[in-house]
Amino acid sequence: MTKPGAPFSVSFDELHDFTKAAFQSVGVSETDATTGADVLVTTDAWGVFTHGTKCLFGYLRRLQAGGLRSEGVPRVVGEGGAWATVDGDSALGLVTSVFATRVAIAKARQQGIAYVGVRNSCHFGAAGYYTWLAAREGLMGLSMANDIPSVAAPGSRGAVTGSNPLSYAVPAGRYRPMFLDMSTATVAGGKVYAARMRGEPIPDTWLLGPDGKPTTDPKGFPESGALQPAAGHKGYGLALLIETLSGILSGAAVTWKVGSWLLDDPRQATHHGAAFIVIDVNAIAPAAEFAARMEALIDEIHAAPLAEGTNRLRVPGEMEWERHDRARQSGIPLPADVVFNLRKVAELTGLSPDWLKSSGAGGGLP
Amino acid sequence: MTKPGAPFSVSFDELHDFTKAAFQSVGVSETDATTGADVLVTTDAWGVFTHGTKCLFGYLRRLQAGGLRSEGVPRVVGEGGAWATVDGDSALGLVTSVFATRVAIAKARQQGIAYVGVRNSCHFGAAGYYTWLAAREGLMGLSMANDIPSVAAPGSRGAVTGSNPLSYAVPAGRYRPMFLDMSTATVAGGKVYAARMRGEPIPDTWLLGPDGKPTTDPKGFPESGALQPAAGHKGYGLALLIETLSGILSGAAVTWKVGSWLLDDPRQATHHGAAFIVIDVNAIAPAAEFAARMEALIDEIHAAPLAEGTNRLRVPGEMEWERHDRARQSGIPLPADVVFNLRKVAELTGLSPDWLKSSGAGGGLP
Repeated sequence: MTKPGAPFSVSFDELHDFTKAAFQSVGVSETDATTGADVLVTTDAWGVFTHGTKCLFGYLRRLQAGGLRSEGVPRVVGEGGAWATVDGDSALGLVTSVFATRVAIAKARQQGIAYVGVRNSCHFGAAGYYTWLAAREGLMGLSMANDIPSVAAPGSRGAVTGSNPLSYAVPAGRYRPMFLDMSTATVAGGKVYAARMRGEPIPDTWLLGPDGKPTTDPKGFPESGALQPAAGHKGYGLALLIETLSGILSGAAVTWKVGSWLLDDPRQATHHGAAFIVIDVNAIAPAAEFAARMEALIDEIHAAPLAEGTNRLRVPGEMEWERHDRARQSGIPLPADVVFNLRKVAELTGLSPDWLKSSGAGGGLP
Repeated sequence: MTKPGAPFSVSFDELHDFTKAAFQSVGVSETDATTGADVLVTTDAWGVFTHGTKCLFGYLRRLQAGGLRSEGVPRVVGEGGAWATVDGDSALGLVTSVFATRVAIAKARQQGIAYVGVRNSCHFGAAGYYTWLAAREGLMGLSMANDIPSVAAPGSRGAVTGSNPLSYAVPAGRYRPMFLDMSTATVAGGKVYAARMRGEPIPDTWLLGPDGKPTTDPKGFPESGALQPAAGHKGYGLALLIETLSGILSGAAVTWKVGSWLLDDPRQATHHGAAFIVIDVNAIAPAAEFAARMEALIDEIHAAPLAEGTNRLRVPGEMEWERHDRARQSGIPLPADVVFNLRKVAELTGLSPDWLKSSGAGGGLP
């Protein structure tokens, strides 16, 4: 998340240009490269640095090796009134997920709600991008995806489920969309991995070691150990709901059959699944009434009494929007691990924008 | 949950007869009384005693006073291809929720997925009953409801959201449905209230006192204090998702406008909201393939390595099904607080079945 005092800053547009050019340099079409850059740079602007351009290097490596197909074209392979199944054709997970969201939006506009399951996808970045896409058009979105197991079940030694993320976004009248993007693990694996890269210890509520006991040492992850599920059996139960909607119902790979987009052979497809549910709230409730009711809920939360030491209550997503506005105005404060990965992208692609050459943070850091 | 060594046991059918007769004694039709008894006694059989017949006395009091209408008839007041809005007409929340689930099932069979929002409902018991109803017919169900605030937001002093429950159930081939019923608070308020009734302290992760600090004393709840959200901002975010789908989109009361079914004037409607989403998995995936994939997931979990001190891994709902089978065979082991409430029902209605007269547990206990 936001790294206070991060000395490295880049404008949204500069980072977008670089990301788009990097995708194009390995054969991705301009349209798909733009989509990919939209997803990753918006995610960084929200301060969700574990799922933004930090992932670009890994995607490029897979695009070069063929596990991700730069010429892949996601398409609907099954559909009914309010549902569709999309085959991602091993295109970028970002591109397939935007496509699937658009299918879900179109069907929800017809029927009120729609489910779209996705197979043959890959890591899809931040789940929140796709729900925001729906909310931006006035609809409510839910998104989720499965992943190779990295999270324990209550009582297991080792991983049983993916950290299977869940996001929703709801249009909220004069306010920005209410917006949650959460992992069903205590924390996203990317945060543990980032701590490992920075050589920092982690809270003992995040990870179990290979012996199934809590540990503060992220060194073995993700090769060994397992994340702890959020709220124990609740996070575990939600992860299996997401596995069902993303993996089982869509015909994607399930649990251990999903490939690791980071660690497995980049020449092989990972067969991730995902699911998108969109609800046309204005078909169901009068638009002005729905907006007024969302605004009243948010106003009520903003006015609620505070515990000692708190200076305000936030609605889900509010912190991300504040970071986004600051980032748009004064640049995205990239943490060192992201800068490190972007320099690997520069090496790989031969791109070398001035802003990435500047000394300052990132240099020499792992 | 199950009270080990509980000395009081009643058969499913005896408890069902009593519950149905109690509903009928205050003017509920035989059909609706049967539905109400189905919901409450199945919930007890699952061992979810906070949401089973323990609630019967409160419902009867409201039915007598008029806040719940024994002659209420839930009906569809708005609909489209894959959605409907149901007005509960202040009928029993159990009856309205079964009706709404049936509407969602019918629409999902047409369109693949359907959303039904409910307004003018009341406490709906265990969210899991309705999702199981869908799973029993081969569909996947999600259910949720809002409630008067009892749960803090991260940083709040006092309650901001309801403990807004969420359930899902998925048909699983040769296995019983995979099945989760969770509160978005660390624990359901009913568990804190049950501890209060039993005079027992609670873990300091459950409740915040009126000062917004963790407490082990349940005495003030629910009049003051607030439950802690499950996994902090994640439980808080999920509670607001549920508030949106159950309360805002359906046109029901929202947060503080919802009445307390337990504490508020029983002559007044509580205006709870609820939401039901049903997915016809066999319309989307080939039935045999979906079943085989669910079975493989469950087999894999059963075979996963165990942490020290664990003797098996369970799939969500497995514990409830085991309790259910034991209860069907050798009786439902009712905890003292439930027996106490059932004796109040006996007094109120004049019903006095032999099994409730037997000495043993429950007598004299609060």
